[in-house]
Amino acid sequence: MSEFRKDPIIDRWVIIATERSRRPNDFQTENQFPAGNFNPFAPGNEDRTPPEIAAWGRPEGSPPDSPGWQVRVVPNKFPVLTREGELDPQGLGMFDQMNGVGAHEVIIENPDATWDMADASQEEMIAVLNAYTERMTALQNDPRFQYVLIFRNAGVAAGATLAHPHSQIIALPITPRQAQEKVVAARDYFERKKRCVFADVIRQELAMGDRVVEDSEHFVVLSPFAARFPFELQIYPKRHNHDFSQLEPEERTALAQVLTRSLRRIKKTLGDPAYNLMVHTAPVSGTLTGRHEKSVHAAEDFLWHIDILPRLTKIAGFEWGTGFYINPVSPEEATKFLKEQDVEN
Amino acid sequence: MSEFRKDPIIDRWVIIATERSRRPNDFQTENQFPAGNFNPFAPGNEDRTPPEIAAWGRPEGSPPDSPGWQVRVVPNKFPVLTREGELDPQGLGMFDQMNGVGAHEVIIENPDATWDMADASQEEMIAVLNAYTERMTALQNDPRFQYVLIFRNAGVAAGATLAHPHSQIIALPITPRQAQEKVVAARDYFERKKRCVFADVIRQELAMGDRVVEDSEHFVVLSPFAARFPFELQIYPKRHNHDFSQLEPEERTALAQVLTRSLRRIKKTLGDPAYNLMVHTAPVSGTLTGRHEKSVHAAEDFLWHIDILPRLTKIAGFEWGTGFYINPVSPEEATKFLKEQDVEN
Repeated sequence: MSEFRKDPIIDRWVIIATERSRRPNDFQTENQFPAGNFNPFAPGNEDRTPPEIAAWGRPEGSPPDSPGWQVRVVPNKFPVLTREGELDPQGLGMFDQMNGVGAHEVIIENPDATWDMADASQEEMIAVLNAYTERMTALQNDPRFQYVLIFRNAGVAAGATLAHPHSQIIALPITPRQAQEKVVAARDYFERKKRCVFADVIRQELAMGDRVVEDSEHFVVLSPFAARFPFELQIYPKRHNHDFSQLEPEERTALAQVLTRSLRRIKKTLGDPAYNLMVHTAPVSGTLTGRHEKSVHAAEDFLWHIDILPRLTKIAGFEWGTGFYINPVSPEEATKFLKEQDVEN
Repeated sequence: MSEFRKDPIIDRWVIIATERSRRPNDFQTENQFPAGNFNPFAPGNEDRTPPEIAAWGRPEGSPPDSPGWQVRVVPNKFPVLTREGELDPQGLGMFDQMNGVGAHEVIIENPDATWDMADASQEEMIAVLNAYTERMTALQNDPRFQYVLIFRNAGVAAGATLAHPHSQIIALPITPRQAQEKVVAARDYFERKKRCVFADVIRQELAMGDRVVEDSEHFVVLSPFAARFPFELQIYPKRHNHDFSQLEPEERTALAQVLTRSLRRIKKTLGDPAYNLMVHTAPVSGTLTGRHEKSVHAAEDFLWHIDILPRLTKIAGFEWGTGFYINPVSPEEATKFLKEQDVEN
């Protein structure tokens, strides 16, 4: 079983993922997916993944783990965390350790291995968003989990190991350091000012204008003021809502368009780079199930959002040594390039 | 001029490095250095770098910026920070910004472009360490700087853009978040227990034994308990000392051997992977110059150390989204592989 381990000096956890254990000569250093490899996510190969958790789009009455699906969710075959067992936190001398309990699922976004989210139809994209919100809700309702993250690694440089388009969802028994830090900062801000800090950022960005890539009825797309990466994007909803899984129908339709358009801007500007996409939502709150009352979240001070990080620069010693990021493209410059693309289908 | 910008929500600074400004199609995505490129660090090309700051090994009376050096230090031609000007902190609405003032130097470690630190002679390595400590001391004495980081990016995957062996040194006007966090945690620990947390970690690791790669008179090499990366190494001195630049002569000789040996272990185990190396030292303290009294550092609670991070895994959406790292190789397993290498020259 995997283990959570805490750094003995600072508040940083790592996952020692023994399910993916590798020997010294097993590390892939290529920049491309190996050609001709078996694709376990292709229709017809359903028996080569663990049994499915959910699927959408099959004719009624079809058996599970058979072709005909539009979106399919399966457990990760090499999970970094496993659903069985107890956390069982232990001290090893001055060190802290817990069992690697959690959920790790794969959302296969389309039956077509060559499908590109940047060129998705609205219908295809809504199907993906439906899978996102349904799985997020299901995992939020599991009383063992405090935090649910949806993320998408596209391209080898972004950490993807399979080319077939997919996202991943991980549910954690503890709120990770970064989410915690954001939530605590947002709560402090709210307590001082009685305003949501995210709403203030959006207002400020809309007033200044030079980092606004897109502004529409339901969403704002920004290249953030302190962007860590060149051409980084953030998508914020206009309606205050801490929980991504509570998307309203018209927001879902709008987000399908905004997300595809944003990815198309990046693709057209940068020639299809690798990227990471993350859906940031509040830690699980007592309001959903009544069972998680110890959690940190307050609905009024957090706004869900999506980060898209094109992977154009390498993280080097300076970043590892300081926690500072060096971004060679100002977000104002990035905005100009991204805005000028023709992104209508 | 570059800018420091602070994230409006969490305490994270980025450097918008306009000196390195790049257009969308300027991003290198290859995994290897371009062959046949001009090498500005080679002897004979001294006029293609900015005028040198220091050099060692030339016959006495030789002019600067001429061949014959063993180690040479020059300003970075594309610095992320520049020495001129004032910080001039400003608020832009709710955003925080400062000018990118700092120092950014390159330490050219050897005249031979094919020299490998993993195979260095003791004499060559001592020459590099002398350059490290001399430049660190000089920058620590500049009253504008609070923090000095020495780091080495080896290989394209680690962020190196030139193959010729070199390290970099950056001096910052603010103590970066990560150093601050370590220093604060170490001080809290010291105040509670009257012991250095690093010394306790070393004692614990020596007692447990299964993550000790090497233990000699002056240094301990560990694969740390909560390693973020496969085959990550930490080198700690046995003598308590917060400031790397205060190395004693016998420690310098021992470190030359330990460092080369550690890199050779990684090279032999993993086949010459890219890596980042960082020298962590305490923020600048009032004890050196009497001029930096507002700095956070206390000498008794911090221990300088070196991190070596082989770059075998990709940082993906989960890490960016949570701040958790996934390490597929346990440090105990890594220790076994690294220990068994024959690393004597």
